[in-house]
Amino acid sequence: MTSKTIDIDLDEIFSLAKAALIKHGANEENAEAVANTVTNAERDGSISHGLFRIPGYIKALQSKKVDGCAKPEIEEVTPVILRCDAKNGFAPLAHQYGIKKLIEAAQKFGIAGLAIQRCHHFAALWPEVEKISEHGLVGLTSVSYTPAVAPAGGTSALFGTNPMAFAWPRPGKNPIVFDMATASMAKGEIQIAARDGHAVPLGTGLSSSGELTTDAAEIDKGVLLPFGGHKGSVIALMIELLSGPLVGETFSYESKERDNGDGGPVQGGQFILAMSPKILSGKDTSDQTEQFLKKYNDIDGVRIPGARRHTNRKDTGPRKVNLELINTIKKLT
Amino acid sequence: MTSKTIDIDLDEIFSLAKAALIKHGANEENAEAVANTVTNAERDGSISHGLFRIPGYIKALQSKKVDGCAKPEIEEVTPVILRCDAKNGFAPLAHQYGIKKLIEAAQKFGIAGLAIQRCHHFAALWPEVEKISEHGLVGLTSVSYTPAVAPAGGTSALFGTNPMAFAWPRPGKNPIVFDMATASMAKGEIQIAARDGHAVPLGTGLSSSGELTTDAAEIDKGVLLPFGGHKGSVIALMIELLSGPLVGETFSYESKERDNGDGGPVQGGQFILAMSPKILSGKDTSDQTEQFLKKYNDIDGVRIPGARRHTNRKDTGPRKVNLELINTIKKLT
Repeated sequence: MTSKTIDIDLDEIFSLAKAALIKHGANEENAEAVANTVTNAERDGSISHGLFRIPGYIKALQSKKVDGCAKPEIEEVTPVILRCDAKNGFAPLAHQYGIKKLIEAAQKFGIAGLAIQRCHHFAALWPEVEKISEHGLVGLTSVSYTPAVAPAGGTSALFGTNPMAFAWPRPGKNPIVFDMATASMAKGEIQIAARDGHAVPLGTGLSSSGELTTDAAEIDKGVLLPFGGHKGSVIALMIELLSGPLVGETFSYESKERDNGDGGPVQGGQFILAMSPKILSGKDTSDQTEQFLKKYNDIDGVRIPGARRHTNRKDTGPRKVNLELINTIKKLT
Repeated sequence: MTSKTIDIDLDEIFSLAKAALIKHGANEENAEAVANTVTNAERDGSISHGLFRIPGYIKALQSKKVDGCAKPEIEEVTPVILRCDAKNGFAPLAHQYGIKKLIEAAQKFGIAGLAIQRCHHFAALWPEVEKISEHGLVGLTSVSYTPAVAPAGGTSALFGTNPMAFAWPRPGKNPIVFDMATASMAKGEIQIAARDGHAVPLGTGLSSSGELTTDAAEIDKGVLLPFGGHKGSVIALMIELLSGPLVGETFSYESKERDNGDGGPVQGGQFILAMSPKILSGKDTSDQTEQFLKKYNDIDGVRIPGARRHTNRKDTGPRKVNLELINTIKKLT
């Protein structure tokens, strides 16, 4: 792919994404939900979750793996447990339906959980938790994917890159939001380092013979490791459990087994938690939290998680998008 | 401290711990709860949370920082949110009172949260989540403490060693349990490495001038770092938020500010979450999970978290305890 870019307004990004999805059989509601997720990623500078994902979404529609007209169904299992059957659709519409009810339940009872099943997730996780935080709630979520990461101590892949995201509400301010893979590095980053001949830190992954190496090309042929050694590995394990059997869905290896390999997102589960600091604590702790965050931010070299995205978001101007990608997507519309 | 040990039966460990606590003003109920926690730590080989902690517990009773006769009060804020006022007592009795109700709520509604306030926690976290898992539930908990860890990128301490623990139930088997500090290494381990002149991995901590070093003695004078760089750091940040303002309690730096420095446990908060996989998923996912765990365990070099403790537990014989420690505790009885 060339590195030539073209300037495109956010509303054009949205229209382009939506048109490609509609063209391949998605209905208005699904196409808009996905296009919105894609546009917000471009807006915030998360370009690996922006238009870059559209060809994959389209492949999943073309192969009929995903139902572009799916209408998610939400079951209120208990007043605080919601189960969403995404009906084999893309995740954004399931989020739109489910998170609204999750927020209502958490605001009323202090805590609530959403189990999403039969869903194809192909984006970042911060939109889900950030949405929850806009309502004064703490959000936590996780998904698994397909095996790419070896448990610490091992040499064969079992875990997905298994991200988790967390958001903490700050009334009148941007929330604290992190969204991180439990893999040491994204597969795409390894591939770019391999292409450019850059070394990666020892501990990032193993060669195909199971040896630690700083050679990205070797790791690309081998396996990634979790971030942070054994500690990161057990967090990756926790995410397999939370995103799989906790919500009635597959582990990463099972998601891969049932996938048709079309390059689009695999089907799997997602766990989303919402909690009310006000109800749990019994008071308003926002001033206390702001004082802590001031101390945190005052430490040289330290930054508030999510701040870069929130800064990018302020820019209402056009975004630079890879020209070849745009041409690819235009052919899909 | 000498490295001479003495063999002591578990019931003697319990009696010794209880006697020392009673002698310094704890009532039966509190002394038994703490002695039980201490004995279970020795039983499972977690000796840094066993009798080793008794002198600290006693200091907190001697200075009147902790009320050894505290009777925790549980408020049912909503059907799924419990708030426990530990009444300035040690944590084990608050757990005994609170976790029972937490389990009942999670079994009924699928999810529940327990906010513990005014509590002095001085032990491992796995007993809380393991208890929850014995009832078919997933447990998650966290506490903060006093500043010992610099946020990634910074050079001054703000986070506690901030552990989190997680347990997943396995009917008829030992649960999957992890309990880990988000600090790269325990302060005690650094001190032992410094004493013995052993190097520690780069990234463990910083010297007093803020430089990365493998010299444990330099780190002991400087500051610890979180495990896993920036990713571990945001998890440590999350734990500050969950254990502090979420539950209506202090951040690590606030806990330190209000502490009397007697060497006993500081007052702070604890967050405990319980969830029912059966209710969230709508089915029994234990066979599926066992198949995954078999795959996990079959990978050479990989082990089930918590397995070492569960193996140690089977040994009903005496435990080897440091002789000098035993003599110190005997003087306290």
